[in-house]
Amino acid sequence: MPVRPADIALAHRLADAAGAVIRPYFRQPAGLELKEDRSPVTRADREAEEAMRRLLDAECPGDGVVGEEHGVKDGVTGRQWVLDPIDGTRSFTAGRAIFGTLIALVEDGWPVLGIIDQPVQRERWTGVTGRPTLLNDAPVRTRACAALEGAIVATTSPHLFEDADVPHFMALVAAASGGAPRQGPVYGGDCYNYGLLASGFLDIVCESGLQLYDFAALAPIVEGAGGRMCDWNGDPLTADSAGHVLAIGDPARADEVLEALRNVAGHDHHDH
Amino acid sequence: MPVRPADIALAHRLADAAGAVIRPYFRQPAGLELKEDRSPVTRADREAEEAMRRLLDAECPGDGVVGEEHGVKDGVTGRQWVLDPIDGTRSFTAGRAIFGTLIALVEDGWPVLGIIDQPVQRERWTGVTGRPTLLNDAPVRTRACAALEGAIVATTSPHLFEDADVPHFMALVAAASGGAPRQGPVYGGDCYNYGLLASGFLDIVCESGLQLYDFAALAPIVEGAGGRMCDWNGDPLTADSAGHVLAIGDPARADEVLEALRNVAGHDHHDH
Repeated sequence: MPVRPADIALAHRLADAAGAVIRPYFRQPAGLELKEDRSPVTRADREAEEAMRRLLDAECPGDGVVGEEHGVKDGVTGRQWVLDPIDGTRSFTAGRAIFGTLIALVEDGWPVLGIIDQPVQRERWTGVTGRPTLLNDAPVRTRACAALEGAIVATTSPHLFEDADVPHFMALVAAASGGAPRQGPVYGGDCYNYGLLASGFLDIVCESGLQLYDFAALAPIVEGAGGRMCDWNGDPLTADSAGHVLAIGDPARADEVLEALRNVAGHDHHDH
Repeated sequence: MPVRPADIALAHRLADAAGAVIRPYFRQPAGLELKEDRSPVTRADREAEEAMRRLLDAECPGDGVVGEEHGVKDGVTGRQWVLDPIDGTRSFTAGRAIFGTLIALVEDGWPVLGIIDQPVQRERWTGVTGRPTLLNDAPVRTRACAALEGAIVATTSPHLFEDADVPHFMALVAAASGGAPRQGPVYGGDCYNYGLLASGFLDIVCESGLQLYDFAALAPIVEGAGGRMCDWNGDPLTADSAGHVLAIGDPARADEVLEALRNVAGHDHHDH
């Protein structure tokens, strides 16, 4: 069933509401606090989620809501809005406008609409099942990638991998860099990297440890731009994928990417 | 001798000229090429340096010029302009507006003026010996950092360290994260991180492998904002520092930072 235009419009209103909350906090040190787990998170994060939840309570009271800050609200419609007001809190607190607000609509367990909104640079990627992905109002496409060697790989931080994942990731990096290790991955970026991949400026994003509210918005955006999203085995992403997320701009390279992730034989000193 | 206002004005004209060349190439895939060493570099990089050199040839024909793309022009005045049109080419080619144009004026071997210009977001940090550092027209200050534990450390990429440097860097990261390894460094960012440190959004930038044209512009900016720049031994940066660069927002933490960099004893599985 195609996504209703009213839901797309509502998703944009959610992003507008979150952005209006977040922008005044950007580069305002007073907004910083620390959670118990020491991850930096701001009042902007909480208040932006509250603003979005207020809109959803008013417009779709029967829909479920999942948010990083305020937990799960069960719904009765089989639909679920998945919210992450600030994905990339470390970039946000460092004053780098490459974080994003993530909004997804999940129907019967499947994300059918996703938004990545960068409120400071006012860039918004919108992906809807069956439609081309848009950056603001313009359709975007992933780029062709002729060979894995030379592909640009991005990930937020090597420290976000579990130890057992590191050699697999580094094997992919080695295959992409073709023995030029200083041509390593593009680091930093969080959700913003998936938008850049959808726009054809990156070839592969490889991460682990992502939660549902991190990746639900990303799949419709990457796939609506011609890319592929899957887990590290090539299987569709689910809430049980343990967050092993792979976005591949050119689906023709998928087999090589998956093979490189498996091939840790030639790997040595990075294998910690 | 104080920096002449005419030289400051010229430095801004250089940044304007570079930005005018660079902006139209941003997110234009057709601009991409590869150097022999496989690092991505764009026509924007070469043409922006040419534009700056034309200005310098016209305005200060006796000054020396050092640029990443077009090499060294010897001067007769003891003054040298150090240019890096696009520091952060990987961010540039990935479509992330956190790269920068670096411009430094070096007199008698010492950088007395530095600019970091982000032409897409139109952010320009200007540092001049004896003056407060400016972001666009507003003075900026580094922030106080009460303790090394909890300090936010940034670096462009772990792959830019020589193998022998990695345990030292990771020891600093461990001291700053206080045993919360997932709170690792902020990655990516190149010169832009030094501007953010000057503006009080990051506490420490730690890198190695930087060239003179990478760091000459950074010192006046960091120091004019109240921070300290030195090498990994705490000594002043020189062209012979082998590019071991440390920027510390709160100079009161300098001894602890240097001690943490030396202390690799408690280091284990990251010691590759």
